[in-house]
Amino acid sequence: MSQDKIAFIKDSIKSIPDYPKAGIIFRDITSLMENAQAYQTTIALLVEKYRDQGFTKIVGTEARGFLFGAPLALELGVGFVPVRKPGKLPREVISESYELEYGVDTLEIHVDAIQEGDKVLMVDDLLATGGTIEATTKLIRRLGGEVAHAAFIINLPEIGGETRLEALGLDVYSLCEFDGH
Amino acid sequence: MSQDKIAFIKDSIKSIPDYPKAGIIFRDITSLMENAQAYQTTIALLVEKYRDQGFTKIVGTEARGFLFGAPLALELGVGFVPVRKPGKLPREVISESYELEYGVDTLEIHVDAIQEGDKVLMVDDLLATGGTIEATTKLIRRLGGEVAHAAFIINLPEIGGETRLEALGLDVYSLCEFDGH
Repeated sequence: MSQDKIAFIKDSIKSIPDYPKAGIIFRDITSLMENAQAYQTTIALLVEKYRDQGFTKIVGTEARGFLFGAPLALELGVGFVPVRKPGKLPREVISESYELEYGVDTLEIHVDAIQEGDKVLMVDDLLATGGTIEATTKLIRRLGGEVAHAAFIINLPEIGGETRLEALGLDVYSLCEFDGH
Repeated sequence: MSQDKIAFIKDSIKSIPDYPKAGIIFRDITSLMENAQAYQTTIALLVEKYRDQGFTKIVGTEARGFLFGAPLALELGVGFVPVRKPGKLPREVISESYELEYGVDTLEIHVDAIQEGDKVLMVDDLLATGGTIEATTKLIRRLGGEVAHAAFIINLPEIGGETRLEALGLDVYSLCEFDGH
């Protein structure tokens, strides 16, 4: 039953060859969200997995993490905290930089958005290198939050992000996997 | 009762003086989302207003529009379509540019995300000049979608966006208003 649901979700994700560059197959979650039933099923499966486990905050990373983290927070009845690119959050922030294939990127979080002892679940659309979720984990831990869980819609296991995140002590869950980069 | 809910939502929105520059009071919806009850009440009021009206798509603009448009689409059981900054959407897009105080910005939508005759509701966090929603309206109409409704959490009436959007034939709704710019 759950496998049928996951196959349905996976089928709703379009694959775009050679985007954003040659040799990459981009997995497009916008096609999932255009399909109301696929989107609702996705959130329902996340709710089933994570309800009644004592999470006090859901953190989602800009911008596609908002699309899954915010609905999950609403369903679980806990606060939603966005992690954003620099200059987007208006209150006091801390920041973490992480390496990209070419260059460096930075993420920020409001310092008062996580309280000491908060039990945090991180949500993003896709796990590739794990760089954004590693930076997000560091931000949450610097603010005293406990974070041991990261949820994704898609994992690309060949890239190895799961191993990187497990080394940080994270339990990594993804609804579906795709081959390739 | 509804007035109490709206006062509760309004109280959950922090006001940040002199952000992003001197003289501007920034109305911060991240504090609303951190408060699970305020966030749930916000979405419930939007559902109450827009259910059973035949909308076939919800369109939300990057990135804060995702935070209200996506949960509303899930509750109404219709597809969610993101409008994004250039280079973020992987399939074929059309684009519209609009003027900012200093410079020009551009928004894109997937050409296959709206079908001829779709009845579209646009959702964003805040109505200021109305520039992003004017551009979004044009994108939807170029694809054959019918769009006559825009919903916001916050309206800043002194800036005049409502008048601008009404001139496009839009019915404009906001949950709450704040003075100033």
